[in-house]
Amino acid sequence: MWKGFRRTYAVAVRSASTSVTLADVARLAGVSSATASRALSDHPHVAAATRARVLRVADELAYVVSPDASRLAAGSTGRVAVVVPHLSRWFFGAVLEGLEAALREAGIDLLLYRVGDATQRRAFFDRLPVRRKVDAIVVVGLAVEGWERERLELMGVDIVAAGGQVAGHPFVRIDDHGAGRQAVDHLIHLGHRRIGMIAAVDPDRCGRGPEARSAAYRDALADAGVEVDEELVAAVDPGGAGGARGMARLLGLREPPTAVFAHSDEAALGAVRTLRRAGLRVPDDASVVGIDDHPLADLADLTTVGRPAREQGVAAGAMVRAVLRGEEAGPGITLPTQLVLRGSTAPPRGRRRRPRSD
Amino acid sequence: MWKGFRRTYAVAVRSASTSVTLADVARLAGVSSATASRALSDHPHVAAATRARVLRVADELAYVVSPDASRLAAGSTGRVAVVVPHLSRWFFGAVLEGLEAALREAGIDLLLYRVGDATQRRAFFDRLPVRRKVDAIVVVGLAVEGWERERLELMGVDIVAAGGQVAGHPFVRIDDHGAGRQAVDHLIHLGHRRIGMIAAVDPDRCGRGPEARSAAYRDALADAGVEVDEELVAAVDPGGAGGARGMARLLGLREPPTAVFAHSDEAALGAVRTLRRAGLRVPDDASVVGIDDHPLADLADLTTVGRPAREQGVAAGAMVRAVLRGEEAGPGITLPTQLVLRGSTAPPRGRRRRPRSD
Repeated sequence: MWKGFRRTYAVAVRSASTSVTLADVARLAGVSSATASRALSDHPHVAAATRARVLRVADELAYVVSPDASRLAAGSTGRVAVVVPHLSRWFFGAVLEGLEAALREAGIDLLLYRVGDATQRRAFFDRLPVRRKVDAIVVVGLAVEGWERERLELMGVDIVAAGGQVAGHPFVRIDDHGAGRQAVDHLIHLGHRRIGMIAAVDPDRCGRGPEARSAAYRDALADAGVEVDEELVAAVDPGGAGGARGMARLLGLREPPTAVFAHSDEAALGAVRTLRRAGLRVPDDASVVGIDDHPLADLADLTTVGRPAREQGVAAGAMVRAVLRGEEAGPGITLPTQLVLRGSTAPPRGRRRRPRSD
Repeated sequence: MWKGFRRTYAVAVRSASTSVTLADVARLAGVSSATASRALSDHPHVAAATRARVLRVADELAYVVSPDASRLAAGSTGRVAVVVPHLSRWFFGAVLEGLEAALREAGIDLLLYRVGDATQRRAFFDRLPVRRKVDAIVVVGLAVEGWERERLELMGVDIVAAGGQVAGHPFVRIDDHGAGRQAVDHLIHLGHRRIGMIAAVDPDRCGRGPEARSAAYRDALADAGVEVDEELVAAVDPGGAGGARGMARLLGLREPPTAVFAHSDEAALGAVRTLRRAGLRVPDDASVVGIDDHPLADLADLTTVGRPAREQGVAAGAMVRAVLRGEEAGPGITLPTQLVLRGSTAPPRGRRRRPRSD
């Protein structure tokens, strides 16, 4: 019974404006109704030319096949859920852009869910098991652990993490520790020793990224034989306003830093604003380096460590396509980051000689 | 037959990990199977307490009802398609964020489609009639006309435009002419007469927005008795790089402008970079005003005309909910814009007296 009705359902064709039937499409295309149905539902055993002819006829008649019906018959929804913490911030939008492109290429639709504050996040994971209408879930820029991970896994679909972590599931990420080292090592190579850090603290969201960047700061200083002065670390909210406040705190020290490593470009741009408002010049009076290579970092002439964003989305999309084909996606991939030298960093005062480029 | 099978389908309950049936859920919740089915499919005629009990039991048993099934039984998909030209640019992300929030509140899922270049756009509208699996479509930041509009309407679902136009369908927008007037009138009030314009030219995407902003520039100058010098208009690609190039062109004039109106904050920030590279100070040597109130405009101390972005998304979401309830959405709404005074504008040299604030 179930099987028969799924078949009936899969061939159900509705017209948007007329009352033409599947038989009409079949007749005009010169094929049987069964063939027309298979062509409309993307069945593999239909010749390409036949399929094209049926689709053209259906299209001319303004026929509307219900894709839900065909997908359900094939045992999949043709949809992937994407969960993001932000939509109006560049990084998340760029990851989403890459992911959408990769899924679209495979004819997969993208269902978008934003989990903003803690309440929304709780509500989202709370309702998850009654939302089973996707083939896979991509979690972007979130660390999902414990109860939340159990809820995700309860759905019984594939899970991929992009720019975040879901333990035990394939991931696409950057090496946050490596990115932090690139930024801080650059300041050390320029001759800076009194280096401040503006750390983005948002542990609910981005998992161990901030931790790894902070660890890189300490490791780079230790390797250079510089003792960490905890006064030089300002933990702030992510974003520009946080960066501005963090820089103000560092400027209030008896001995302010000659250079600052910010966890993000937005925080770095906030720091630059505070320095300018204090009448200080960048990089003459203080160097600033961020992480991201935000499109506006170029306009602000900000030295930064570029992290791939769109590329992480594309890679996550490819991973989803692989697991949906039943292939092994492996533990995950780590994409490279790169120092982008611009005008916001220079040697400290008294050492104004450009270092060898290397 | 069709009706009966839809009912059967609506009560189909699958478990993610066990083989519990709908009858088990009903028994444990102390209700009939029919009531359990109605509760799980959000049927209106179920007492709230009963519904909560059934959902709790289903949840405890890790039951997974197929939402597609319930929605199909109710004659709707519970999904809305959103079409955007960009995802990694602030404005579109912010509209999307507001829209997602408004739809989520109503339990509506959001299917995301990005149409990037002309080829993608053509492919998207080409395939539209075989994509009928949504209750409505929201078009964000695109002008949809002619053949594309016909394709959209062929789907027979409600259409709402946010920050763009689809003739004959409800819209949420800003008054682009008014926004342009606010920016240019501000420069005129400061005493500027030689005012340049960096115009974003991307006619395929944003419809008449750029045109209206350009018309506002001409009208404001005419009202102030200033003749438009066509040399002072630089038409460029949208975005920071375009703004930088446009400013370079204006600086190459025999008599460069003392102030510049850019169609967007990104273009304005590009213009500021060119001025700085030329050794000129903002606003001492040249004033710059944009449109948007991009989050980074604040960090860059850029005077601008704020246009609501998230709010346009929220309003479009409310409009979708209204039309899906069968209510009249009206022709549309126009949200207000507002001048945001920051440090990138000042009277021209020789008139350095702060004007009265009014």
